[in-house]
Amino acid sequence: MDKWYIDKGPDSDVIISSRVRLARNFKKYPFPHKTTPEQQRQIIEETKNALFSGNRTMSENFSYIDFTNLDSVEKAVLVEKHIVSKELLETNRICGVLLSKDERISIMINEEDHLRIQCLATGLQLSEAWETCTNIDDLLSESIDFSWDENIGYLTSCPTNIGTAIRASVMMHLPALTMTGYIKPVLEALGKLGMAVRGMYGENTEASGNMFQLSNQITLGKSEEDILLSIKNITSQIIEQERSLRQHLLTQNKYQLEDKIFRSYGILKNSRIISTDECLRRLSDLRLGVDMGIIDGISIENINELMLMVQPGNLQKREGRILDANERDIVRAKLVRDMLNKQKNY
Amino acid sequence: MDKWYIDKGPDSDVIISSRVRLARNFKKYPFPHKTTPEQQRQIIEETKNALFSGNRTMSENFSYIDFTNLDSVEKAVLVEKHIVSKELLETNRICGVLLSKDERISIMINEEDHLRIQCLATGLQLSEAWETCTNIDDLLSESIDFSWDENIGYLTSCPTNIGTAIRASVMMHLPALTMTGYIKPVLEALGKLGMAVRGMYGENTEASGNMFQLSNQITLGKSEEDILLSIKNITSQIIEQERSLRQHLLTQNKYQLEDKIFRSYGILKNSRIISTDECLRRLSDLRLGVDMGIIDGISIENINELMLMVQPGNLQKREGRILDANERDIVRAKLVRDMLNKQKNY
Repeated sequence: MDKWYIDKGPDSDVIISSRVRLARNFKKYPFPHKTTPEQQRQIIEETKNALFSGNRTMSENFSYIDFTNLDSVEKAVLVEKHIVSKELLETNRICGVLLSKDERISIMINEEDHLRIQCLATGLQLSEAWETCTNIDDLLSESIDFSWDENIGYLTSCPTNIGTAIRASVMMHLPALTMTGYIKPVLEALGKLGMAVRGMYGENTEASGNMFQLSNQITLGKSEEDILLSIKNITSQIIEQERSLRQHLLTQNKYQLEDKIFRSYGILKNSRIISTDECLRRLSDLRLGVDMGIIDGISIENINELMLMVQPGNLQKREGRILDANERDIVRAKLVRDMLNKQKNY
Repeated sequence: MDKWYIDKGPDSDVIISSRVRLARNFKKYPFPHKTTPEQQRQIIEETKNALFSGNRTMSENFSYIDFTNLDSVEKAVLVEKHIVSKELLETNRICGVLLSKDERISIMINEEDHLRIQCLATGLQLSEAWETCTNIDDLLSESIDFSWDENIGYLTSCPTNIGTAIRASVMMHLPALTMTGYIKPVLEALGKLGMAVRGMYGENTEASGNMFQLSNQITLGKSEEDILLSIKNITSQIIEQERSLRQHLLTQNKYQLEDKIFRSYGILKNSRIISTDECLRRLSDLRLGVDMGIIDGISIENINELMLMVQPGNLQKREGRILDANERDIVRAKLVRDMLNKQKNY
């Protein structure tokens, strides 16, 4: 695997990844839920043409994944990699995703909006993700007339997205804030600042493994640059809080912290049955241990890879067969053991 | 350490150790709580003389440990090794213990009775322990006139011991009976059979690490041989039940069993803070794993040694200083890590 999500990026001790997505709709077609299958097919074709026509780099770099005949494991893998949303899996519309080779850039077609242009990056790289998105948007805009109003901005299927139609988010790893209980006032303050905080897989998901996704709620009345800047500023503050609490824990509760981290490490290297949730929780402890220099011999890249590989879809893809929940817990434990025992031993 | 309790004995997969003790009192002195300090000193001297006079082997093999000036750590170590009772620590009488070099044989002086002759053995060796006790008793009887009634037998300070004044016990490791919940009816049945079941350190102690001490309640109206035979028969039945349940767990719940055992192993090899109770619980899992061939590279002797070394007294003796409970939990975790990581690694 040489994909972006295995890499380590800026501020990766706290920020796992950054994401920017733009919602766009064709002016000439109704919003997705009102489209006919014929229109859905046309949207797909016209988007492909807009991306590929006269642009060799794009056609070499991107491929289209048709959701019509995709099996459930492949779909789950794409969700687990944050390439597509759960919503795309559940729609009855003809749909799919244009995906770059490094899996950084994806364009979902016929999700809630006709197009969802998304760019992912490791660590804190919101500006870079935004640059990439806006370049793709510019390219598509050369051929496609997007639904746009001079006073409002981009029009979207759901009114919460109108205006800039941008959503920028960062996936934060906040074990120290969680352990000390300071996460609660932080989350409350973020809500007041117009920010949404969600679990690892977006809306309606729980925070697994101390991972929190921070994103903007407001898309209207502010420029894209202002939205990105406010997220960056808030993120910087959270990074500082998390880092300072980690140091505080190391100074004040050294043995307790090390005990928690090493117990998780020992369990990961030895368990025979482990659920996704417990596994992510223990990998979060391990990640904290590596970030703080308490555990060495394992890289953040190893942990990034593991956090993805232990997910149900990736696990089943790797095994090449459908597994029930009990089988997954056994296979997951074995995968983690094998990968960690390959590393330097304690 | 080349003491008896590190060795592995017969049926050691279930029976950790066997113990026989006899209560004896001098006819010419009142029972201990009525004795004067002068009488207490005389009892000690007369017992030493009875053991040593004209018997070179005994005087070379036994040494007397005077409790008057013994520090609290040394006393705790003796209790943890099951050489003396907690009661001996708490009495205000002048007291002590005659102890053989291999620590198998001890004679407590001025405990509840003038003498408590005790023999310990690894695994199921009740007859051997009884033989040793009765030899010591015979030797002492040559010089000491013990309080004895033709109709009743030996007279003791507490009426529950009169008659044979024998208590025979086995320390049983019963993880499968505990895990499956079958331990409850077994304990109830044992009570009805006139047996007492206690924790690792006798009366009023809890069962730590799935260890249960089974002993006779009745001392009057039966011969020593009958008492030993009934304990042996009951023990054999419990051994069979425990073994059959272990096999059942391995067949029916292989992954769950292995998961439990290996998690405990992983925690023991990695924790930075561990209480005595958790440590014994996890060592019990490890012992089960070794007995069942699930874990190799560690011997039962290693585990026997660890189960003793992690006790508060032994831990402090090893460190050479008094430790508070928090310090002990840290030192204990380090000791266990160091000892297990010296063994074959997983």
